[in-house]
Amino acid sequence: MKRIDAIIRPSRLPFVREALEELGYGGMTVAEVKGHGKQRGITEQWRGREYKVEYLSKAWILVVVNDQDLQKVVNAIVENARTGEIGDGKIFVSDVLDVIRVRTNERGPAAV
Amino acid sequence: MKRIDAIIRPSRLPFVREALEELGYGGMTVAEVKGHGKQRGITEQWRGREYKVEYLSKAWILVVVNDQDLQKVVNAIVENARTGEIGDGKIFVSDVLDVIRVRTNERGPAAV
Amino acid sequence: MKRIDAIIRPSRLPFVREALEELGYGGMTVAEVKGHGKQRGITEQWRGREYKVEYLSKAWILVVVNDQDLQKVVNAIVENARTGEIGDGKIFVSDVLDVIRVRTNERGPAAV
Ligand SMILES: Nc1ncnc2c1ncn2[C@@H]1O[C@H](COP(=O)(O)OP(=O)(O)OP(=O)(O)O)[C@@H](O)[C@H]1O
Ligand SMILES: Nc1ncnc2c1ncn2[C@@H]1O[C@H](COP(=O)(O)OP(=O)(O)OP(=O)(O)O)[C@@H](O)[C@H]1O
Ligand SMILES: Nc1ncnc2c1ncn2[C@@H]1O[C@H](COP(=O)(O)OP(=O)(O)OP(=O)(O)O)[C@@H](O)[C@H]1O
Ligand SMILES: [Mg+2]
Ligand SMILES: [Mg+2]
Ligand SMILES: [Mg+2]
Repeated sequence: MKRIDAIIRPSRLPFVREALEELGYGGMTVAEVKGHGKQRGITEQWRGREYKVEYLSKAWILVVVNDQDLQKVVNAIVENARTGEIGDGKIFVSDVLDVIRVRTNERGPAAV
Repeated sequence: MKRIDAIIRPSRLPFVREALEELGYGGMTVAEVKGHGKQRGITEQWRGREYKVEYLSKAWILVVVNDQDLQKVVNAIVENARTGEIGDGKIFVSDVLDVIRVRTNERGPAAV
Repeated sequence: MKRIDAIIRPSRLPFVREALEELGYGGMTVAEVKGHGKQRGITEQWRGREYKVEYLSKAWILVVVNDQDLQKVVNAIVENARTGEIGDGKIFVSDVLDVIRVRTNERGPAAV
């Protein structure tokens, strides 16, 4: 089992969600976060002055998947989160040792 | 060391917290998130109409434990988060390479 | 690649952020969370009465780094998050199997 932590533009969340749904995908968790990538501060103009925006609002998505579904879920997120502009986001993949469904106490791949 | 990421009903958080406290357990981190499990959208009735609720509010709990405490902490979360209805939540277990207590700079199991 | 999950005092976030920036560090993600460490509840006085504060506000920071940068980033967080009082926070390090930059579809260390 693998965990996918994706930090994306909030405006792309509905498209990513729908793509995962079309893949028949199970569950997902979302939170509002803020962040910056390698450009760090972003300088914006407002009424003729420059302001440094230190963080941008992002959506954090956690999707835990079975190993055989990892690449198709990552690709669906990439394709649906992308606009082509800087700041499109980042995906982190890591290993999961166990998954437990609370209602049934099922464990392992069947609980994903 | 292991990390336990549990996504549970917010209403069960006080019970889970108390169970961990009774186990003598160290620390925990909590955030408000939203999500859906394998049922995806949930259809609710309101004033005779049907609405699809896309996400439900959930509590995300992070508890990092020493290896020998993993099963008892997972079981305490399962038992106290469960209502028996769909949507009771999910627990993800993964490996942690190092823990650092910021105040003392202690590292490893002693820092958990 | 490694992920660093740090739970720190919100008041120290600007200092940690600046230290990472001085290291030339890439990206970071931040969320508002609440938590308690090993002291669990904290008893506060207010108008002559005692109240148990169950959770304290904390900042959760996620920084994914290349392996060779792990120790310097952890040390920068420790040094800048520390006040010396209880509740300074905790850092969890774990392994990351893959990183993807959404805009370019780059994968692995180059995407960090
Ligand atoms: N190394 C990192 N660790 C943790 N979070 C990160 C990291 N890099 C990026 N993020 C998160 O992802 C969000 C989007 O990052 P972003 O897409 O700007 O990455 P980037 O590497 O700068 O790529 P680009 O050049 O396309 O902008 C950031 O706001 C931050 O929340
Ligand atoms: N695969 C997953 N990846 C990430 N988060 C998930 C996943 N599955 C569930 N979650 C999170 O857990 C919450 C609760 O899920 P839920 O209990 O509905 O799981 P389920 O598999 O549908 O089980 P049940 O049939 O008992 O409802 C979801 O709202 C979501 O936040
Ligand atoms: N084992 C843990 N699992 C998850 N989160 C933790 C854990 N321990 C601490 N935290 C998080 O880190 C925050 C700060 O913890 P804290 O610094 O109080 O740790 P501590 O072990 O009690 O150290 P100290 O004695 O210096 O207070 C907590 O509010 C909580 O959000
Ligand atoms: Mg960027
Ligand atoms: Mg469900
Ligand atoms: Mg403490």
